[in-house]
Formats: sequence, C-alpha cells, structure tokens
Amino acid sequence: MLKDAEKRTVTEDGRLMLEKAEKDRIETVWDRYAAQTPQCGYCEMGLSCRICNMGPCRIDPFGEGPRQGVCGADADIIVARNLGRMVAAGAAAHSDHGRDLVEVLAAVAEGKAPGYGIADPDKLKRVAAEYGIETEGKPPHAVAGALADAMMGDFGSRRKELSMVRRAPAKRRELWRKTGIMPRGIDRETSEMMHRTHMGVDNGWQSLLLHALRNALSDGWGGSMIATEVSDILFGTPKPSANTVNVGVLKADQVNIIVHGHNPVVSEMLLQACQSPDIIDLAKAKGAAGINLAGLCCTGNELLMRHGIPMAGNHLMTELVIATGAVDMMLVDYQCIMPSLGKTASCYHTLMISTSDKARFPGMTHREFHPENARDLARDLVKEAVENFGRRGRVYIPVEPVPSLGGFSVEAILGALGGTPDPLLDAVKDGRIRGAAGVVGCNNPKIKHDYGHITLTRQLIENDILVLDTGCAAIANAKAGFKVAEAAEYAGPGLKAVCSALGIPPVLHMGSCVDNVRILLLASALADSLGCDISDLPVAGSAPEWYSEKAVSIGAYFVASGVYTVLGPMPPITGSMNVVKLLTEGLNDVVGAGFAVEPDPEKAGILIRRHIESKRKQLGLDARSV
Amino acid sequence: MLKDAEKRTVTEDGRLMLEKAEKDRIETVWDRYAAQTPQCGYCEMGLSCRICNMGPCRIDPFGEGPRQGVCGADADIIVARNLGRMVAAGAAAHSDHGRDLVEVLAAVAEGKAPGYGIADPDKLKRVAAEYGIETEGKPPHAVAGALADAMMGDFGSRRKELSMVRRAPAKRRELWRKTGIMPRGIDRETSEMMHRTHMGVDNGWQSLLLHALRNALSDGWGGSMIATEVSDILFGTPKPSANTVNVGVLKADQVNIIVHGHNPVVSEMLLQACQSPDIIDLAKAKGAAGINLAGLCCTGNELLMRHGIPMAGNHLMTELVIATGAVDMMLVDYQCIMPSLGKTASCYHTLMISTSDKARFPGMTHREFHPENARDLARDLVKEAVENFGRRGRVYIPVEPVPSLGGFSVEAILGALGGTPDPLLDAVKDGRIRGAAGVVGCNNPKIKHDYGHITLTRQLIENDILVLDTGCAAIANAKAGFKVAEAAEYAGPGLKAVCSALGIPPVLHMGSCVDNVRILLLASALADSLGCDISDLPVAGSAPEWYSEKAVSIGAYFVASGVYTVLGPMPPITGSMNVVKLLTEGLNDVVGAGFAVEPDPEKAGILIRRHIESKRKQLGLDARSV
Repeated sequence: MLKDAEKRTVTEDGRLMLEKAEKDRIETVWDRYAAQTPQCGYCEMGLSCRICNMGPCRIDPFGEGPRQGVCGADADIIVARNLGRMVAAGAAAHSDHGRDLVEVLAAVAEGKAPGYGIADPDKLKRVAAEYGIETEGKPPHAVAGALADAMMGDFGSRRKELSMVRRAPAKRRELWRKTGIMPRGIDRETSEMMHRTHMGVDNGWQSLLLHALRNALSDGWGGSMIATEVSDILFGTPKPSANTVNVGVLKADQVNIIVHGHNPVVSEMLLQACQSPDIIDLAKAKGAAGINLAGLCCTGNELLMRHGIPMAGNHLMTELVIATGAVDMMLVDYQCIMPSLGKTASCYHTLMISTSDKARFPGMTHREFHPENARDLARDLVKEAVENFGRRGRVYIPVEPVPSLGGFSVEAILGALGGTPDPLLDAVKDGRIRGAAGVVGCNNPKIKHDYGHITLTRQLIENDILVLDTGCAAIANAKAGFKVAEAAEYAGPGLKAVCSALGIPPVLHMGSCVDNVRILLLASALADSLGCDISDLPVAGSAPEWYSEKAVSIGAYFVASGVYTVLGPMPPITGSMNVVKLLTEGLNDVVGAGFAVEPDPEKAGILIRRHIESKRKQLGLDARSV
Repeated sequence: MLKDAEKRTVTEDGRLMLEKAEKDRIETVWDRYAAQTPQCGYCEMGLSCRICNMGPCRIDPFGEGPRQGVCGADADIIVARNLGRMVAAGAAAHSDHGRDLVEVLAAVAEGKAPGYGIADPDKLKRVAAEYGIETEGKPPHAVAGALADAMMGDFGSRRKELSMVRRAPAKRRELWRKTGIMPRGIDRETSEMMHRTHMGVDNGWQSLLLHALRNALSDGWGGSMIATEVSDILFGTPKPSANTVNVGVLKADQVNIIVHGHNPVVSEMLLQACQSPDIIDLAKAKGAAGINLAGLCCTGNELLMRHGIPMAGNHLMTELVIATGAVDMMLVDYQCIMPSLGKTASCYHTLMISTSDKARFPGMTHREFHPENARDLARDLVKEAVENFGRRGRVYIPVEPVPSLGGFSVEAILGALGGTPDPLLDAVKDGRIRGAAGVVGCNNPKIKHDYGHITLTRQLIENDILVLDTGCAAIANAKAGFKVAEAAEYAGPGLKAVCSALGIPPVLHMGSCVDNVRILLLASALADSLGCDISDLPVAGSAPEWYSEKAVSIGAYFVASGVYTVLGPMPPITGSMNVVKLLTEGLNDVVGAGFAVEPDPEKAGILIRRHIESKRKQLGLDARSV
C-alpha cells in the first residue's frame, strides 16, 4: 500500500496515516474517489441539465446526439447556467457565514452573548466609520449594534452598491458600474443568479456569466469581507504569531479536541473553555497532561491566525486525523465537513459533535450553539471531551509537528512594513520582488494531496514572487516548512533579501478562505498607492487543488476584481468552448483579467510568472523573460 | 403525423398547430423531448451530484456500484440536496419577480415611472396598514414609498418573521415556529438553502428538507405574495371579466402582439400603447383592422385577470402560436420562455423582443425596459409591430376562440359571496360543495398536453369539488370550456346549484403562478372562519403537469401551509426512499400535510376526493366513500 499512499499525497503525515487507515480498514476520500471513476462525462463537461422536470437533459459533445435540451437550451446555455449556480452556492456559503457573525455582533451589542466581546475596538471604529456611523463618544457596544444593523443592510435589497466596494480602487468601481456587475445586495445577487438560471429566464451565456461575476463580487466585497472584518472585531485582528502544523500537533498525553469547519464563533468559545483553569484541572485529574485544542481546515485557520492554535491538517487530512485514535472530540461547524467523518469516528473513541443549526451530519451528536448558550455549552463539551480521554485505545501520532508563522492580516503586513505599503512597492519597483501571487483553495483527490500547492509555491518564491496564501493551501505550505523566517532560504535572492530584512517568511499566511478578501484589500492598497487599477498590478491568483463551489466564487471575484487566476482542476465547463473562451480570454476585455486552467503546478507557475512579468513591463518596470 | 399529434395533446388547436409545425419543419418541444429519451436514470432519480469538483458523483440505485459520493454523501443526502436546490431556484424566481414589482412601486412613489400609477389605492392602504404604515391623510404616493421600503425589509435579514405570515392562521404560525421553519427573510432562506447544500454543510436529509419548506414558505408568504399584492396595487385587483382563449384569439386582419413570461410590468405598458388612438390609427393606415394584444403563460394570465385580454395558450403552445405566422411581435419578460423561440420565429416574420435586464434569448432583439422608459419604449415597440404587419406571409389560425371568465381574486370571490366566506362555508358544511382543490402548474411533454389538467378538473367538479386554478392549468381549463357560467352543467348537482345561484363557473381562474398565494389566502380565510388550521380543511392542491422549479417551491409551500398536494410527474427523488417517505408520509406528522405523486389524473382525482372526504369526516361533516 505504500506505493499507493505515495501516489495520493506528498506529505509524510498523510502517507503514514493512509497506511494506518488501510490497516484499520478505514475508507477514505481517495477510496471513494477511485470508486466513482470513471466519472460521468456529461456532468464533468457541464453538459447535463437538471434545471427542470422536462429533463434531465444531456448534450452530446460529439454532435451525434441532441444539441439542445427539451427547452431548447444549447451547450453554451447549459454550461453557463450550471457554472452560475456553482458561484451562487459558493457566494451563499461565504455570505451566510458572514451573516452569522453579524448576528453575533448584534447579540454582543445587546448584551446577549456571554463570553463574546469586542476584541478590536479600533477596528470596530474604523469599519463603523466606513459605514457612516458616528463613533465619537459612543460606547463600543452601541457602535457594534449600529454596525451590525448597517451590515445587515448589505444583505438586503435597498442598496444600489454594497458598502465595502468603496474599498476597491475608483477605476475598478467605475468598471463594475459600466459593465453592470456592481453588486447591490449580497443575498440579492445569489437569488438573482438562481432566478436567471431557472428555465426560460436568462438564456444568454454571456449575460449569465457576467451576473456570475456580480454574484461573486457580492461575496468578495460583501459577505466574505463582512465575515473577515466582523471576526477581527469580535476576536481580534491577526498579528504574526508562531504555531505548529500537521498531525503531529496531536498530543498522546493530552486531551485532544479538534475544531473543524469555517466559522470561528463556536471555536472561540471552545478555546476559552480549554483555557479555563478548572477544566484543565479536571483534565489533569483524569490523567491527562492538559488540553490540546487543534484545528482543521478554516476554523483551524481562524484560530491559528488569531491565537497561534496548532493546525492538524487540511481538507484531505480530516478523516486521517481521526484515524490517529488520539482525537477525543471533534466539533464541526459548517462547510467542507465530509459526511463520512461520523462513520470514520465510529471506528475509534472520538466523540463527533455538530454545532450549527444549519448543518447536521450522519453519526454525529447535535449540540446546537447560539450566542446565548455558547460559552456554557463549550464548557460542557470540553468536559465531555476530558471524560472521553480515558476511553482512548492505542494512538498513532507518527510525526513531529512543523513550526510555522501565521497571522498576516493586511494590518499586520503593513505594520511589518512600517505602516505603509511603500517598502513593498519599492521592492517590486526595483525588481527585488517581481510581484505577488495568492495561492489559495482546497485539496482535491484529483490532484496529489498538497503537491499542487507546494510545487507552485516553491517555484514562485524561487522566482522572487511573494506568496500570500489562505485556506487549505496555507496549511499545505505551512506543513512544507515555507512559513518560518528561515524559509527565506527557499526564495530567490531578491525576495530572500526582503524577507530577511523584515524577518518574515516568503509565504504569508493570510487566513481562512473568507480571508481571501485580505488579499483583495492588500491588492487595493497597492493599486491605490500606485494610482492604478488592480488589473495593472504584477499579481496573480491560483487555486491549484480547488474542489468547492466557494472556490469558484473566490476565483470569480478575484478575476472580476482584476486578478488573473490559474485553476488546477478543470471546472465543469469544457462542454462549451464559448464559455471556456470567454472565461480564459474574453474576460480580459471586460474586467481586465481572466482565468487559466493548468493542473500541472509547474506549468501553472510559468503562467503566473509570465503574467507577472508582462504586467511589470506594462508598468514600465524591468521584466524578465520566462 | 395526425396520430402523433393526438398523442401529444388533447387540444384541437394544439393538434392542428402541431401538424402545421410539421409541415413547416418546425422543431417543437415534443421533438426535443423525444430526442432526449431515454433520459439519464441517475439524474432522473436525483442520484447524481455535481455539487463539488471532487465529483461529479453517482450513486448506484441497485447497490452494485458506489453507495456514497467522494465526500461520503449517500443517496438520501444527495437527493435531498438536489431537491433543496430546486426549491431555492423556484423560490428565488418568484421572489425576484416580487422584488421587481416593489422597485416599480418605489419608482411610482418617487414619480419616476411615467405611465405607472396606483390602480387600487384601497388595497394599497390595506396592505400598508398590515405593514404598520400610517396611511391616514397621506397621499397614495407617500404610502406607496413607505410600503415599498417596508417590503424591501422582507427581502433582508433583519426580521425574525416575514411580515405577511400574519395572514396565516395563528395555529399554522405557531406550528412553523415550533418546527423551526418560520421564514425570516425572502432572499435569506434561498441563500441559506444554497449554503446548506454546499459540500460539507447540511448532511441531514431531514433538516435539508425542513429548510426547503422554510425556503418555500418565504416564497408563498413572501416573494410571491408581495408579487401578487403589489401587482394588484399597481395594476388593479382582478374582478370577474370575460375573455377568450386558445390560438383562435389571434386575428388574421389585425396586428397581433403576444406578451409572454410572468411579470406584468412590461405588458401593462404594452397594453396602454396598444390602446393608444394614434397607434391604432397607424395600424389602420397600414391596412390592419386594429391591434390585438394577446397573452401566453402567466404574463398572459396577469393581463387576462385584470383586463380580460385574450390568451393564446399555455407553456407547450408557445412555439406553436408562432407557427401560425400571425404573430407580428412577441415580447418576453422572464421565466418559462423556451430558448427555442427565437429559432422558431426565424421561420416566420415574427419580431422577437426580450425586455428584462436579467433575461436574454438566442435570436431575439433585446430592448430593455425600466420604469423610467417603459411607457415610451412600449409605444415604440408597438409601432414596430404595426410596421411588421405588412411583412406577414400566409397565416393559419385554425380554430375559433373559446369564451372564458377570469378575474377571481380573493376579493372578487368574497364579493361574489356577498362579502363573507360564509355562503361558501355553508355549502361545504351542508355538503353541496365537498371541498375545494387547486389545480395549478405547468405543462410537461411527459404528460399529454392539457390532459392532466382537464381530466382531473372534470372529475373534481363532477364530484362537487370547487376547482381553483392558476397558471398553465388555468389556461388548459379555460380552453376546455370549464370557465363559463354554463360549465356548471359539468358539475355535480351540489356544486352546480351553488354555481348557478352565484352565476359563477365551477372552475375559478385565480391568476398566474405567483397568484397561487390567492389560494393560500382563501384557504386562510376559510380556516379562520371555522377557527381551524388550513390542514383541517377539506382542500387539496395538485400540479398534474408540472415541470418547473417554481412548481416545486409552490408544492412545498402548499404542503408546508397544510395543503395535501398531488403531483403529476415524479420529481427527481426516487433515488431515496427515505426522502420519498418523508415527503409522502412523514410530513403529515410535521406540517399536517404531505405530497402524493400520481401521473394518471383519474387516479389523482380519486386521491384528492378521498382526502377531502376524510377531512370532512374529521370536521364532523358528512363524508362520502370514494
């Protein structure tokens, strides 16, 4: 099996845990992927339509069968509708996450959220001021209430433009208005996408795709941005701090509690509970050396960014982490939580707890968190995890954790630069740094686990491109050791010199997947400093191992914001060469950026370097040939 | 071909036009349906999943292949997620339609919508009062502005309950609260449905289906209800009025303009333009006897209900109407407009005009309507239609139109009853009328055109069940001649007597598909009068030929409101017997009503009659055995 495990992942902990899973007869996501292949070619190409009950319909890609569905929709329309709905789901997921945070902010304002508070009152004031809220002399709770209410307005239908689009460069906003893709209301754009894709509504594949961009912008400059900003206000704006990553963060002698999902609302209370002296005493009384809270995926990233909490793994590791036998409790909120986890855990002693009113899972116990009960419920659950410590069987924690540095919010990056983006811009201008690239997104069993992220990131930093990462990509890069100051050694001479001077790694962990908006904001700050648009910058985005609809929305708002974006796995669009061409070429004329798809990360790196060098040339900076 | 045509439709105009289409080599929806069969069994059963890019996945219904998708989702989860997204799209479609009307109402209030006005100031006052808006001494425009703003709030995220749920019986509202399906915000529930169905969010098939009910309720008691109420305010609350239906409403000697789609905003302006003396003079100068505006589908229903405008046909007739060669211009807004229509029209002289900013179609000219330009643009377009009259080839209008009576808003029905539901209730109590049934929904080439509607309706009225119909079903029943006072002859003795006494037909046309809320409101009025819940009433719903996602949402809000509902075509759920059982049986314990699926309308009629008689028995009324 060793050979097979090496095909599946480039990580040591992944490989060893796959072998353990095999020994324990645990089915993994790779096994299920293998069982599903070959996958349906119609669905893979976006050519099957289930949008109405005259169907289901299929378009024959070889032209030998039907060229239209029952309604008359052709391949272009069907592919565009299907893609539009992926964006809608992704935008809805991020934005509903944002709404949940606004509701906590409102509950804090009303004094109905014991345990929660305003961790960053300065940011609260700054953001409130952007919303036109008078903050002078007002207590933070009053400001918080007004801000929560104003943000709820962004989810409504009364606005012509979302509030935070004002953070985008003026040229970009003008382009959105002119193109008709300025987002108006967060939920509205999602609803309109669902409406447009209903049978007999929008049958223009171009107009469908343009609205998909608007829908995605309502995520990037709306729902996700609200999620990030309110999380910072409630739980603190991240600052650089050390942490450790991989399965080795689990402790054989401690109570291990894993939080998994995306929203920090529950996990922050868990952290408080895990740090309570009385509960730590209880753990010690039960024979544990302490309580070890660790994260998975983006709930993990949220805690890592703000508190340096260790990170056990990314998307494809979530089953394998349980297979250590060392997890006494796993709490999940929502998004990217494989419904297989309950079954995996049933082979061990792990208690599986679902916590969100909108997400249940087979084989998990549902303990619903609300702002009112969160503090107490978190304490109860940690105590139950402590009790469960004694029920452990043998544990297998085969690796040592890797050190890493996280917490690079825009505020932290500007702080490290001395308060202005100028030192970074100077380095870009004089060519020490060629540009910057976001390496973001998920894992996907179609790509060898972490291989896409690590390979691309290594090539970029070797070529003096600063990497900003989030989500599962950020965890991959941390595990690879790219996130310590010493990792400057992996970088090309220019980037190495800059990193060494500033004491930062060449790969900056910017957070969870909603935190991709931090990359947008950094790009906006750079564009504003240069007096140009985002699309003029030597920057790029990439999602080498993406799998989720959220990633489709992220990719779309990156591109709509002017950032050239290279995807690893192919989205289900190859059934329409018109759609493929518009996304990869035509959008350049519309929003000044487009997509590329390149599953080979070495080649993706070359695409990104070429793009960055060509942007440098356009800006009148020195350009290398790639 | 005659034989084939008779298999496809029960209507004479349909049959004759199918023959004409065959002669003209026009491809129809039936041809494309035939070309698509056999349809994909996985998609048909709801067992294929395209929700993330680890997939696409398929569950083997025979248990010989994979039982889980790559993420671990099983058949129950996959089927429930797919169904949830159908509800989301349907609810979004209706609700976005409602929002468009609210925006017109706001524009009217601001004086920015020339040609539009407040046609029913009394209804404006009544609805505004429900929203807690002070109306005394305020000019209608001020009230309209305040109401538009308050309604926009229902699309937002600040409310705990939608405003108009207060119209539902108190018991029903309490049930919604208790079950956790009280709708909070219209777009919010759609967004949450999309979020829940994202990979790794809600993996409880029961909780997914419950949220689907909440999402549907946000349509029925939210978006659709707003659409209906604001349409009444702007364009008049329907009153009984005569009209004519079928392809024969086209006039060989007049300029024929067809409006097709769902939203009355554009078509009302067309109507004004068609009635302008100067444009009628222009038509006469061009050799036409006049201008004949006729409708298709629900835009047609909107005009028919309020102005007695003739109706050319329902969903499956939309291509065939063009094949008459007599349509000088067709204007479409959105929903259920087959993207094939542009191609069909290209074989004739028909000008095809798309009018909505969110709906483009191949082969149509896009002329975008907004409240500001609508009056003028409508005049321009009617003039262009007049010009096009001279370009006609031979026309084929093979039938005479059928007379019909429309306009049965709740207000009109209560008016006919003398202002209270008591006479109707008395007839129900003493058994002259056994109960009432909604016959609603679309056409679908899987069911012989109009056969489902007509067959079911005939059986119901023969058995003294009052039929309330909307949408394409209402058009089918009108074409069948069920909607004149003399149609009381088709009814059983009790219903016949009541209809004859009141001078109404046994089948009451209640409007377009958003107007299904009129049925909800009538049911609520009856329940309130009896002091019971809707689920206690001897009423039922049916959609014998449904095809659209909107119909799924309508069915779900009917059931969630307590109305037993029988679907004709099977939804894509047979891959999960758990989902099938919950929808058909389990929901009775949750919301006091459930679904049935019965493609044979004769059998569906028996199901409905049994249900109605059993409800009569529970109410202590006399009950027949069926």
